[in-house]
Amino acid sequence: MSEKPASPVTAKAAPRKRSGRRPKGDQDVSREAMINCAIGIAQGESLAEVSMVRIGKELGVAAGMVHYHLGNRDELISAVINAAFKERLQQLPPITGHWRQDIEAFAHSSLAILERWPGLATYILTENKFRLFQRVQPGEIDYGLAYFDHIGRILEQAALPQPFAAMAYHLLLLFISVIAAEKENHQAPQAHGDFISGYLARSAGDYPGAAFLGTHFVQVNSGNTFEAGLGLLLDGFETWRRPTA
Amino acid sequence: MSEKPASPVTAKAAPRKRSGRRPKGDQDVSREAMINCAIGIAQGESLAEVSMVRIGKELGVAAGMVHYHLGNRDELISAVINAAFKERLQQLPPITGHWRQDIEAFAHSSLAILERWPGLATYILTENKFRLFQRVQPGEIDYGLAYFDHIGRILEQAALPQPFAAMAYHLLLLFISVIAAEKENHQAPQAHGDFISGYLARSAGDYPGAAFLGTHFVQVNSGNTFEAGLGLLLDGFETWRRPTA
Repeated sequence: MSEKPASPVTAKAAPRKRSGRRPKGDQDVSREAMINCAIGIAQGESLAEVSMVRIGKELGVAAGMVHYHLGNRDELISAVINAAFKERLQQLPPITGHWRQDIEAFAHSSLAILERWPGLATYILTENKFRLFQRVQPGEIDYGLAYFDHIGRILEQAALPQPFAAMAYHLLLLFISVIAAEKENHQAPQAHGDFISGYLARSAGDYPGAAFLGTHFVQVNSGNTFEAGLGLLLDGFETWRRPTA
Repeated sequence: MSEKPASPVTAKAAPRKRSGRRPKGDQDVSREAMINCAIGIAQGESLAEVSMVRIGKELGVAAGMVHYHLGNRDELISAVINAAFKERLQQLPPITGHWRQDIEAFAHSSLAILERWPGLATYILTENKFRLFQRVQPGEIDYGLAYFDHIGRILEQAALPQPFAAMAYHLLLLFISVIAAEKENHQAPQAHGDFISGYLARSAGDYPGAAFLGTHFVQVNSGNTFEAGLGLLLDGFETWRRPTA
């Protein structure tokens, strides 16, 4: 890593510029209270419901006050995601040094946290910001970075050469996210089993390939898909490892 | 498959009930013209931009006329997706009987079609309708079903036992969709390489695991991820096959 970064992006955000003076004639509510309010909405409803307008309504303060403390929606969303990633990091079991067990535990724990934060998996699969690193205030920890570091240590201990470790990380996170989104959006085949079976029953003669797949397809759910896919990924990573003496 | 389906869903939709008489005093535009207009919007912009209001505006007809011909947005969206799935089916190369080659060709072709229909991959990962089967008019082909049938034939010829074939199908489609969405939403690590490198450069000392992953992570893109992930899936499916004599 060079000491002079090629990119102008700063690792820690500068203290947020507030848009002028604090609005007068309005009850003050702290930045922390606003973020806690947003976290409550994200956990109880969905990340998609978090907005500046909603925070203002919930806390009974004017839009100007919300903007004064939070700046814009980006900062608000990143603060909420950082809270989710903090929980994600804190829930991870200790690294045992048994690579396969460590990755499995990492994957299960990460999936469980995404389920506790509705809308987060869909956000990760469709948006383009704060999927990895967070916009933190000076002195705050970026839990996205800390989590990335944690899985990096596991993959390094797994004796994966660096290019393979980077690819393993990416495949693993895509897989965890797509299964979490499938759960979140109630999309698993089994959840639509009656519809699928009924539809296929009336076309089985014309579509033998569909009939072949259909019988067991309706028993596929996010749980057994996660186990099957994770198994295939781990078997693959096994072949990517350096020979260990 | 029983002759009396357990589910009340009909395989072919009944002719759509039109909401009363055709609105008077307005220029008529055919259902086909409206669907073609929607297909143009979906291909040129995004599936997310397709709406009844937009069709009315584009064709200069009143909302009542659009509703008279199309019913509701569900039917419109399904008609557009059926057009995409028709193209997806037609672009598939013939089945060779070499299972690995056939699945690879299927995966590449399916990914390429999703790229030609912006918004479709995101729709598939986040919505809950028309991801598999389509709501077709009497006499029309459901290309979702025909495509499902096609991959069923490939997986049956691959000597995968039925439960494994169903799981292989699901894992394959999740993977194709998540890579297509990554491309669509410009999310691949390489696309944000400068940002990621710059961010990590300023925290490398504190986060050795992140530094270990980071160097090669910025070279990960949707293309090399697709090849790596597809390879692992196919290696895994190989272990799921029945012993062939």
